[in-house]
Amino acid sequence: MEYPPPFSDSQLEDLVSDIKDWQITHGSLLKLVNTDQDSTVLTHPVGACLFPTLFPKELFEQALGLQKVYNKLYARVAEDEEWLYETLKDDEFARILWDIHEEVKKEGYVQDHTLGIFRSDYMLDANPAGQVKLKQVEFNTISCAGGIHSNLISDMHRCLQRRGAYLPAVPIDTTTPINLSASHLPPSHTLSTVTAGLIAAHTIYGPRKSPAAEQTCILFVVQPRNFNIADERPIEYALWDQNIPTFRVELTPEVLAHTSLTPTRELLYHPPSRPAAAPLEVSVVYFRAGFEPEEYSGPGCGDAREARVRVELSKAVKCPSILSHLITFKKVQQALAIPGVLRQFLSSSGEAVAITNTFARLYPMDTSVAGLEARKLAMDEEASEGYVLKPSLEGGGHNVYGSSIPAFLTCTPEETWSRYILMSKIASPNVQNLLMSPQGLYKGPVISELGVFGVCLWRRSAESEGRVEMVEDKEPCCWSFKTKSAGVDEMSVVKGYGCFDSPALVDNDVFMACCRDGEQS
Amino acid sequence: MEYPPPFSDSQLEDLVSDIKDWQITHGSLLKLVNTDQDSTVLTHPVGACLFPTLFPKELFEQALGLQKVYNKLYARVAEDEEWLYETLKDDEFARILWDIHEEVKKEGYVQDHTLGIFRSDYMLDANPAGQVKLKQVEFNTISCAGGIHSNLISDMHRCLQRRGAYLPAVPIDTTTPINLSASHLPPSHTLSTVTAGLIAAHTIYGPRKSPAAEQTCILFVVQPRNFNIADERPIEYALWDQNIPTFRVELTPEVLAHTSLTPTRELLYHPPSRPAAAPLEVSVVYFRAGFEPEEYSGPGCGDAREARVRVELSKAVKCPSILSHLITFKKVQQALAIPGVLRQFLSSSGEAVAITNTFARLYPMDTSVAGLEARKLAMDEEASEGYVLKPSLEGGGHNVYGSSIPAFLTCTPEETWSRYILMSKIASPNVQNLLMSPQGLYKGPVISELGVFGVCLWRRSAESEGRVEMVEDKEPCCWSFKTKSAGVDEMSVVKGYGCFDSPALVDNDVFMACCRDGEQS
Repeated sequence: MEYPPPFSDSQLEDLVSDIKDWQITHGSLLKLVNTDQDSTVLTHPVGACLFPTLFPKELFEQALGLQKVYNKLYARVAEDEEWLYETLKDDEFARILWDIHEEVKKEGYVQDHTLGIFRSDYMLDANPAGQVKLKQVEFNTISCAGGIHSNLISDMHRCLQRRGAYLPAVPIDTTTPINLSASHLPPSHTLSTVTAGLIAAHTIYGPRKSPAAEQTCILFVVQPRNFNIADERPIEYALWDQNIPTFRVELTPEVLAHTSLTPTRELLYHPPSRPAAAPLEVSVVYFRAGFEPEEYSGPGCGDAREARVRVELSKAVKCPSILSHLITFKKVQQALAIPGVLRQFLSSSGEAVAITNTFARLYPMDTSVAGLEARKLAMDEEASEGYVLKPSLEGGGHNVYGSSIPAFLTCTPEETWSRYILMSKIASPNVQNLLMSPQGLYKGPVISELGVFGVCLWRRSAESEGRVEMVEDKEPCCWSFKTKSAGVDEMSVVKGYGCFDSPALVDNDVFMACCRDGEQS
Repeated sequence: MEYPPPFSDSQLEDLVSDIKDWQITHGSLLKLVNTDQDSTVLTHPVGACLFPTLFPKELFEQALGLQKVYNKLYARVAEDEEWLYETLKDDEFARILWDIHEEVKKEGYVQDHTLGIFRSDYMLDANPAGQVKLKQVEFNTISCAGGIHSNLISDMHRCLQRRGAYLPAVPIDTTTPINLSASHLPPSHTLSTVTAGLIAAHTIYGPRKSPAAEQTCILFVVQPRNFNIADERPIEYALWDQNIPTFRVELTPEVLAHTSLTPTRELLYHPPSRPAAAPLEVSVVYFRAGFEPEEYSGPGCGDAREARVRVELSKAVKCPSILSHLITFKKVQQALAIPGVLRQFLSSSGEAVAITNTFARLYPMDTSVAGLEARKLAMDEEASEGYVLKPSLEGGGHNVYGSSIPAFLTCTPEETWSRYILMSKIASPNVQNLLMSPQGLYKGPVISELGVFGVCLWRRSAESEGRVEMVEDKEPCCWSFKTKSAGVDEMSVVKGYGCFDSPALVDNDVFMACCRDGEQS
């Protein structure tokens, strides 16, 4: 089997031109922030794969099928304060957030509902026997990005398929090319699902409670000078299309300047452009900021804590709350992998087994028995080759890979090692594709990461199992898909590593045959 | 009355930021062609007005209401060979096109249908008595652009209105600001109407006739290295959404290389990316190129004639045909304004009067009695002030304005004067607005141009009145709207003069009051 199918120079040229124009006309773009002036700004297309990348259909469906279990699991973890405190008590950034939680708890929480917009990331892991399995890279609970971009690239690949762009140009004799049909390309409904989640939370909040407010609105808390607005703005437009007023405020100064708490803890938003107008009452606060420690510690950023406290004290539904933000830490992922822990949260052993099967080997780097074992592995020149050292918090970008780990740890004060976790490297089989980005065209072996979005709304409840009652749990037909050159460790499209993509779903044996062909070629 | 309503610095900042992001995420962009590389390209937002510009509701409706009469008139003119020949026989570029027509006529035409996608441009003309009227600037019949951009900007203004972006920030005492409501902002359906026109032509063509072809398709003939793809690509995508295969070929080399005529004159398209595949049969050829004389005369462009002949000989429905291309010449506009001429084409005197009322004073520059009168006006330092000298062909950009005319004519060989027409200057009243473009922000008096699109399909018919049977005539709820600084003569958004815009419709007296207030401020 051969994939991508053989193409001529002319077909490649058309494909490149068609993709650039499609991206320009559909907002699949990044801003060049340093060109952002009063009256104009430059943009370029975000990195994109020319062909959808092969992915085993069965494992794609497995990942989507697991998401509701993951949603339930993480909602329950978020509401288990005691467990969470024990798991995160040594983490510096977690402590900043935990203090906010403590402060708000003293006043008493006035909103029982929390909105989760989660993203569970997977890569494929091939064992020596030639079997390929799904392994979880990480689980994200704040500011999950990439969904809108992938939605667009998936729409684009489906559009190109329909146009015949992926038909083999030159049939060749030795192998059979895979002819992509619409049935290979699953649709993505990320934009509509994320929007539906925010609407569900907005609806649960109900009508305005403060007589001072004119009506309710949703508030996006965003980072300043964001070059990746294409992944945020479409959600805002979709909410306006449903007649839900939606506004953006930058963390930190704008949150503090343009919101206030009433004595009964409604969060009011005062549109800065109309100081004389009545404020709006915030039903839902959606964070696309506040996930980096630097946002709480840089110069002038000390107020981020105050902003989070104000939001957390309010009646608004948060996405995420402080507690559901904390579950994004890798320490949580690692602690859940300790044998027996999952069953504290999932009464069904079938569910627990299904989740466990997606876990890589995960170790703490503390001074527990497992931690000491991990330290030994990490400091060993040969054994470390099979691992990745990850800071507990970061979603990607500060990882240390394989043989670089011992040298890195040698230069790192031992008392801070416990802020990391050690995870077994995932051995992704390579398939072939072409990547296009402002850095250039790349043709060769590639590796993909599948992120399954979970959109759910739960209520903290003393009576319910796991202290959580799931109010809404959207069907997980929403995902992100990113692909990078096999030679690059990091996966971050907006930083220039890798491209947005969509999967071309095939049977396992077809997938493995293409991996083998790729190695031989 | 005051317009735009008073706004604060903060409101302006928000508006600018909201507009740029909306344009980026909706493809309201221009390519920077010199940055177009294999793997990336830079874009920036196309010039846009921050507020919709005031326009008299009654005159907007008058312009839309006239379009079907204009469609009928121009379709009939296109099918009146004799009149057209007489009118255009002195024009050099018209002769190139006419020769193509003659050559095809010898072989015999094999398609009776023609698709018209017209655009009739108007400006407002204020007489000294304070009355304001609609005056036609020009009538375009080939490659009418701007409709998709205006559709987008109109969508954007309506979206911003709904968000409250146009509410007065600071109520002031002396004048009453106009509060924009949705009812002021007419929707534009340009994309869907143009697409529907192409579909109607495609449907009339019917199933493939050549056994060599796989299926039918629509062909866009485009200019190479076009930086304004945002005004073309969405039509192509909309056609694919209706399962109509649509391809782009560049004039000239691609037209010749990738199409062929069968002996029975079906036009076949051979997708260059799949040489082994069966060709498609072209149902409709939509020209977004071929309107500039340079395209037929520059180096390597000699084959444009051959390309036009091939298309014209074929069974495909053309938009436009050679004859309906010729009616775009200003000589035609000027000749139709000669008293009595309209009644040759329009039997209803009411219709003829309604059309005549939109005419400016138009003169030929030839040696006829009217032409000699025009030459006198044009060479007079004082009288020329009230006129514009326009080359017969050009859609804009080569005009000579007012007092520059005598000097221009002095340097121009007298034997070529007849290629121009002389038109009375339109004295547009000034309203106020803010324009944003890569050139900067502009605040001050502005002038708008309304282009009404006419989308119609007709059949040449010996039996019908005016030799034309109108098969389809779409409701003209589609328009372009462009606004420029009052101090600039030329109107071309893509060249950097002026911005895309949408009208804010108000009563005549409100409009005039705002014009007066603008003058006083």
